[in-house]
Amino acid sequence: MIDNGSVDVGAEPALAASFGALERWDGRRGPGNLNVWTCMDRAIALAREHGIGCVALANTTRWMRGGAYCWQAADAGVASLCWTNTLANTPPWGATEPRIGNNPLVVAVPRAAGHVVLDMAMSQFSVGALIAHWHRREPLPVPGGFDAAGEAATDARTILDSKRLLPIGYWKGSGLALMLDLLAAGLSGGRATYQIDLDPDREVGLSQVLIAFAHVDVVADAVLAHFGSPAHAARYPGERVQAARERSLRDGVEVDENVWQEVQAL
Amino acid sequence: MIDNGSVDVGAEPALAASFGALERWDGRRGPGNLNVWTCMDRAIALAREHGIGCVALANTTRWMRGGAYCWQAADAGVASLCWTNTLANTPPWGATEPRIGNNPLVVAVPRAAGHVVLDMAMSQFSVGALIAHWHRREPLPVPGGFDAAGEAATDARTILDSKRLLPIGYWKGSGLALMLDLLAAGLSGGRATYQIDLDPDREVGLSQVLIAFAHVDVVADAVLAHFGSPAHAARYPGERVQAARERSLRDGVEVDENVWQEVQAL
Repeated sequence: MIDNGSVDVGAEPALAASFGALERWDGRRGPGNLNVWTCMDRAIALAREHGIGCVALANTTRWMRGGAYCWQAADAGVASLCWTNTLANTPPWGATEPRIGNNPLVVAVPRAAGHVVLDMAMSQFSVGALIAHWHRREPLPVPGGFDAAGEAATDARTILDSKRLLPIGYWKGSGLALMLDLLAAGLSGGRATYQIDLDPDREVGLSQVLIAFAHVDVVADAVLAHFGSPAHAARYPGERVQAARERSLRDGVEVDENVWQEVQAL
Repeated sequence: MIDNGSVDVGAEPALAASFGALERWDGRRGPGNLNVWTCMDRAIALAREHGIGCVALANTTRWMRGGAYCWQAADAGVASLCWTNTLANTPPWGATEPRIGNNPLVVAVPRAAGHVVLDMAMSQFSVGALIAHWHRREPLPVPGGFDAAGEAATDARTILDSKRLLPIGYWKGSGLALMLDLLAAGLSGGRATYQIDLDPDREVGLSQVLIAFAHVDVVADAVLAHFGSPAHAARYPGERVQAARERSLRDGVEVDENVWQEVQAL
């Protein structure tokens, strides 16, 4: 995306408008992960000043792992709620063509024993999760979309080809994806999903919202103690990532064999 | 709930703490709909002053129709994002006992031709929707939970009895419900789901978050023009409510026959 001119590797985000605790920033099509890192730092500073802080970022590029920025906020002792729009990769419920983004939503609260971090796309499986299942030749555990004939599918490749991803909760995830797009474009003054190039290698001009909360009582330990049933422990959001992170720091980072071969070929 | 002392019908909400654009209010167990109406007005005023405004409301009672308050904000030209926690009525994904609330989330953006308003529980069907299906003796259009033996169920009464509602998107809605609870209790300084009485007639001490955004470009008309497919028009959130509201204003309000008989018996 740097090579094809979509990402301007040297660009830095700039303040576009300030309304007090809410600011608009222009990502200037710089690297998405660096843009959102800078803007989350700014949202944290606004939250420390005003109790709540919000940066709406227009004209940016892919943020990669959204969970990282709410983790960043949690490390600063701040709770957060963030989302991004994406290219149109999911049909609204009741339709057959991809017209909404799967617009990942990330929410996190800080916790000494490990932050609670939820990072989820509005499709039942993110595009990354579909590609990972396809690479591993694993069926999806529940239907993740439809084949070209409209039948429910658990084969990731079939769904990637049909472009008919299933929104979480059918009409509900479809509606929430639409609302996140309306807010992201409306708050940032940037593009909505329908204005974003359908070529994934040119998926730029994204709109993102970063909200930080500086005054949050730490209730997570008590809440998590009541989560799940005695006989059926449920994992909390971020638990598996935390464990994987500790394993990676100890044993090294596990890399998918196909990805590793691609990296070595560069 | 007034008769059993759960709701203090004369209580009014009071400011508990101010951090600038973020305030904590104490609902003092007053009528939930009046509490949130007052607090949404305050969030709108904070948003007009700071760009974004947030009221976290502790110790309140049921808000009834959550969509009403985001509609209230939209009528004031302000976008909004609100949620409430509830008693534990849904098992986390992977567990069998109800330990999370289905924590309704409401999002709205104003629009001259009809506000776009999403009002959704984190369970595939809200408890109200399950009761309505049961009253109408209608099967659910998709599985909404499990029977006592753990089999997927489309009979609303079966799910109300088993208390095994399905979260939207399985693990995803389960995780989001948990995060909304952590933020609601943490921001308001009030109760989390595990601290709320399991008797629906004593479901009080709820925590709610109301966020208002005063600077939102109106992009909804353009976005909705690209929603759905040419051959398969999808409804946008709030479209059916808007139509029903116009019908009610014209022809009178349609009331469920069972509810009407209960009202007449009072």
